[in-house]
Amino acid sequence: MGASSIKKVSIVRVKDDGGTTTSDSLAIEEPLEIRLQYNPGGEQKMHNVSVTMRTPGNDAELATGFLFTEGIIKGKADLDEINHHFIACAENKENVIVVKLKDGTTPHLQNTERNFYTTSSCGICGKGSISAIRTVSAFLQQDDDSVTVNSELLYELPGILQKHQEVFADTGGLHASALFNADGKLLLVREDVGRHNALDKLIGAALNKNWLPLNKSILLLSGRASFELVQKATMAGINIIASVGAPSSLAVELAAEFNITLAGFLRNQRFNIYTAAHRILLPVHEDQN
Amino acid sequence: MGASSIKKVSIVRVKDDGGTTTSDSLAIEEPLEIRLQYNPGGEQKMHNVSVTMRTPGNDAELATGFLFTEGIIKGKADLDEINHHFIACAENKENVIVVKLKDGTTPHLQNTERNFYTTSSCGICGKGSISAIRTVSAFLQQDDDSVTVNSELLYELPGILQKHQEVFADTGGLHASALFNADGKLLLVREDVGRHNALDKLIGAALNKNWLPLNKSILLLSGRASFELVQKATMAGINIIASVGAPSSLAVELAAEFNITLAGFLRNQRFNIYTAAHRILLPVHEDQN
Repeated sequence: MGASSIKKVSIVRVKDDGGTTTSDSLAIEEPLEIRLQYNPGGEQKMHNVSVTMRTPGNDAELATGFLFTEGIIKGKADLDEINHHFIACAENKENVIVVKLKDGTTPHLQNTERNFYTTSSCGICGKGSISAIRTVSAFLQQDDDSVTVNSELLYELPGILQKHQEVFADTGGLHASALFNADGKLLLVREDVGRHNALDKLIGAALNKNWLPLNKSILLLSGRASFELVQKATMAGINIIASVGAPSSLAVELAAEFNITLAGFLRNQRFNIYTAAHRILLPVHEDQN
Repeated sequence: MGASSIKKVSIVRVKDDGGTTTSDSLAIEEPLEIRLQYNPGGEQKMHNVSVTMRTPGNDAELATGFLFTEGIIKGKADLDEINHHFIACAENKENVIVVKLKDGTTPHLQNTERNFYTTSSCGICGKGSISAIRTVSAFLQQDDDSVTVNSELLYELPGILQKHQEVFADTGGLHASALFNADGKLLLVREDVGRHNALDKLIGAALNKNWLPLNKSILLLSGRASFELVQKATMAGINIIASVGAPSSLAVELAAEFNITLAGFLRNQRFNIYTAAHRILLPVHEDQN
């Protein structure tokens, strides 16, 4: 991230005593098209996988993380090279990225977002979405009850993330995903206007570093925990998720199904535990009598 | 909205003095598949347009608003009937909705989200996305500088919305879109786990009421203002948008292009004006000397 993630504009700042013309920083939002180039044997193919509105920066990680968390690639070994593709455009922006797979690799293109919801016998329903994940996740046997975290340590994580969220500090407009180890050490942060993009960037970066499965790490989400975010975390083998905002019903069902610890509303020295509470250690009080 | 938008679960609530088992309300998130049934002349056709993760309730409005703001239908006159389709599923959830168009109506299926970004000569870039909207919006000539709003009135709107956000109050997990008239009267509120769904529901409801174009109304967004939200507002002819959170760079560019007033960070008796500031009237101070 950095300068290319921010745009300076002129605004009118209004408060009780009137308006002042000043400058302000905006989080940049631009489309990114992810194209997949592959040669399953014989013939070179190209497939336009997705267009997402994202904040420029870490685009290769975003593409890698997206393809992995959607089940389209199985891991780093599938990747050959990743390059921005420049199209005729006055602004010459880096808004197309081409992911080239190793020769002989076939992407699992049936595992696109729509099919996550439609491959199950149940058709379109929450339970169907959850069982579809079961068929594509590589790390379902990685749940690890040996990794635990103290509640006092969890309290500290949003503050640590906030110090590292440089672009958010300027713009107030970015979601973040952060990875901590069980001692509360910050390992990785990624930011984006789209919360799913921030998590894809994080998981893509971890994949590049050969860190997967992330079954020893804690994932912190700066906002709410939706089904999509817990789905992506599940694909990466994450067992402990804490979100600053609220979780949704389906996020909680998914976490319960895969024995993932899900905490929400983590702020002001408080939080709620929705699933797999055994991984969070609470203070033991002396009897006061 | 109401009971079916909330799910009660058992949680552990943690604060300084330890954990307590209690119950909590979650915002329900479930997939909705939108199917389009049409007969352009001769042959009945069916097209699966989209799967979105949404909060159940106002599904017909969501489908209508989505089809309209994506440029797939031109207005209410295109619609014949809208029904939930029940699929074989133990839970028997209402997760498929079929929108039947009037015989002889051809949906503009090329105007899907991906094509919004790819039909322009510029290809994939922010400017391309903006000019694609120009080709499909019905209300571009509706910008109306006669409607103005006082800054003091804007200050009040988030508080009014908050009183009406029943589900959010319970779950902390829902985005809202609200429509006010120029006197600050709340006309309509819709909530959803997805911010784009909340706005589609709002615009779908307004379309059903024959309120479009909404060039005399103020749109309030409970969170951030992304490109997608300003795009949908543009399609509905809205000229004044206020968001409680930050806008993105492309949201501001789009608002500027179409002379839409965009205010952000509307909270605690303050806000910023990013575009078309002339529609917001600021207090005039007496000279103190």
